[in-house]
Amino acid sequence: MCPAPLHETVPATTPAASLVFTTVLSHGPLTRAEVARRTSLSPAAVTKAVRPLMEGGYLVEDLDEGARPAIGRPANLVRVDGGRALFIGVKVTGDEIIGVLTDLCCRIRVARHMPLTGREPAVVLPALIAMVQELLVEADGFGVRVCGLGIAVSGDVDRLDGVVRYSPFLDWRDVPLADVAGTATGLPVTVDNDVRALTVAEQWFGAGVGLSDFALVTVGAGIGCGLVVHGRVVSGAHGVAGEIGHLSIDPLGPRCHCGNQGCVEGIASDPAILREVRAATGRPLASVAEALELARGGDPSAREVYARAGEAIGRAIGSVVNVLGPERVIISGEGLAAYDLFAEDIRTAFVRSAFGTAARCDLMTRPLPFEEWARGAAATAIQSFIGPHTYQD
Amino acid sequence: MCPAPLHETVPATTPAASLVFTTVLSHGPLTRAEVARRTSLSPAAVTKAVRPLMEGGYLVEDLDEGARPAIGRPANLVRVDGGRALFIGVKVTGDEIIGVLTDLCCRIRVARHMPLTGREPAVVLPALIAMVQELLVEADGFGVRVCGLGIAVSGDVDRLDGVVRYSPFLDWRDVPLADVAGTATGLPVTVDNDVRALTVAEQWFGAGVGLSDFALVTVGAGIGCGLVVHGRVVSGAHGVAGEIGHLSIDPLGPRCHCGNQGCVEGIASDPAILREVRAATGRPLASVAEALELARGGDPSAREVYARAGEAIGRAIGSVVNVLGPERVIISGEGLAAYDLFAEDIRTAFVRSAFGTAARCDLMTRPLPFEEWARGAAATAIQSFIGPHTYQD
Repeated sequence: MCPAPLHETVPATTPAASLVFTTVLSHGPLTRAEVARRTSLSPAAVTKAVRPLMEGGYLVEDLDEGARPAIGRPANLVRVDGGRALFIGVKVTGDEIIGVLTDLCCRIRVARHMPLTGREPAVVLPALIAMVQELLVEADGFGVRVCGLGIAVSGDVDRLDGVVRYSPFLDWRDVPLADVAGTATGLPVTVDNDVRALTVAEQWFGAGVGLSDFALVTVGAGIGCGLVVHGRVVSGAHGVAGEIGHLSIDPLGPRCHCGNQGCVEGIASDPAILREVRAATGRPLASVAEALELARGGDPSAREVYARAGEAIGRAIGSVVNVLGPERVIISGEGLAAYDLFAEDIRTAFVRSAFGTAARCDLMTRPLPFEEWARGAAATAIQSFIGPHTYQD
Repeated sequence: MCPAPLHETVPATTPAASLVFTTVLSHGPLTRAEVARRTSLSPAAVTKAVRPLMEGGYLVEDLDEGARPAIGRPANLVRVDGGRALFIGVKVTGDEIIGVLTDLCCRIRVARHMPLTGREPAVVLPALIAMVQELLVEADGFGVRVCGLGIAVSGDVDRLDGVVRYSPFLDWRDVPLADVAGTATGLPVTVDNDVRALTVAEQWFGAGVGLSDFALVTVGAGIGCGLVVHGRVVSGAHGVAGEIGHLSIDPLGPRCHCGNQGCVEGIASDPAILREVRAATGRPLASVAEALELARGGDPSAREVYARAGEAIGRAIGSVVNVLGPERVIISGEGLAAYDLFAEDIRTAFVRSAFGTAARCDLMTRPLPFEEWARGAAATAIQSFIGPHTYQD
């Protein structure tokens, strides 16, 4: 069980403590000296930050038998005690809700999928709450309290207020999601943009571990981007950041739902691809899967649509790289299903648009199923639990 | 005189000390409590960071008479002692070298301009060294040693190695500027990209003071951008960042010197505007000033070229805002001379391309003469002097 009452449990409230916790979470077990080196904190500051996390049982210490020196005190290894607390992470897509129960190390213990019959809040919210209740029942079996709920939704999400300001994909406006879910479940709730939540998981456990600057580009229903700069996820002064789907790259391009023209999302998202393949082939295709099949079958018009989509994605990545110069760009999302069709176009357009040494940036793909997005939502709940300072300071 | 021998003088070597120094420099005089609040450091950490800076005479303490409390100890105010050290900052343009002698508060004491007869290193380097020698003679009159030299050059500059890797504007490749200037002058040398250097000055003393996220967009001979994210200037993993001049915004746009097509710089830089006005009017104009005059006189073709340039700049700013969501975008550079001609086009294109609440970003213009760029170069030298940790950690 969590030691303190709900909504009060904050084991570490200094930025140093959060930094130490996330460093041990990503890289642990570590000696205190290694924690100091990786965080640039003084050994005294590490000791001070570790103490309350130890007292709360969130960090534990093991003797490093392998590293026992010939003379002097052996170095102890600090690690996160995953079993100390549970968290729930939920990702909402257009078709389903994906929920995971994780431990404090953000390891998935239980995963659930629930189909949705509609996208409006009146349908999604009760389903979401039912899913959380179900996971809370599962959690009983672990004998550890659930200490937080993270919810990830696409669009303009105000994490501080817990409000989904505008989700074009779900057609939500100003939905006070944290309030509703908190009242119904009794849990502290963190609501964040889904790509940002996934970026936290990639930073802690994925292809972003150890990098101070990277971008995660997601392709599929929309084109999104999560950014880590100077070791922290970029949120934007007004809550908007990483909107590479709405970079306008062609003044003569198709009109986008945002009102602008020639946006990357209006060329390279799954709905845009479906629309263009329908128009180019004159076939009444029902889904992007059928468009994909047609292109794989060699239909030249369909292939041309995918090539244009790949070029748009590559130019968008080139823009991010020219602006920020990250060490790595991770490409993911359900749109990777078509990666064989546009991989070369993405790379060619990226290399052409990257300026000078920015082209040295490492481009990689990484399939991340929706459970990983839900895990990202759980990671944001762990962030909030450990202290708000990793998110805002 | 600086207390320690040259190349050894590092008054503060911890990230906390650098942070305290720059906070006092930008916002001082401050009480220790206020320094702790602004830096998120503990009062104990502030006291520890302040001590060596005081001992070295870089920070001094004044009694805050106005804030003397009715009971208890009066709060002392900490400030930077500007007279404690001098620095030289140099900006190289295509036509001249601008040099400034500043104090430790980066206040300009002496400014010099020197025309250039060519752009090649064999012409620029001796002129630059002569300018620094001249400023060193001026410095003698102050009775304080010059503790660092900062040089700002456009292009891909490797600050760590002190090498200008590629400056398209000067047509330099792999010029070991820090080595050459350091050997000739005996000073510790910091070489940085000119827009990044100007961004440091804006962050410390200009329109970026107090903001953790802002962008500085410069228009003129090139289109550049300096970025501050999470309170620190973005340098890019491979030295390239803020290259908004090479965002490709139109697949049918003119070929750019970088090899790509439809770059912002190929539409909106002064050379691009001159080329387009010449082509549109058929007149053999000698300079962008003549193009500007023609447009101001009402020539519709010339005005159209400026409108297109403004639209490109506005779309580039929209891209930065969609990717990073800064609090403010500062527009500067010698191209502001034409601002009356394209201000409306910049704003219209920005608002159209900004996604959702990102459009709330504050757009402002700020004329910054080349002395300010040279001051930025001096600021990078002060950064290096105070400790490398504000630049890289």
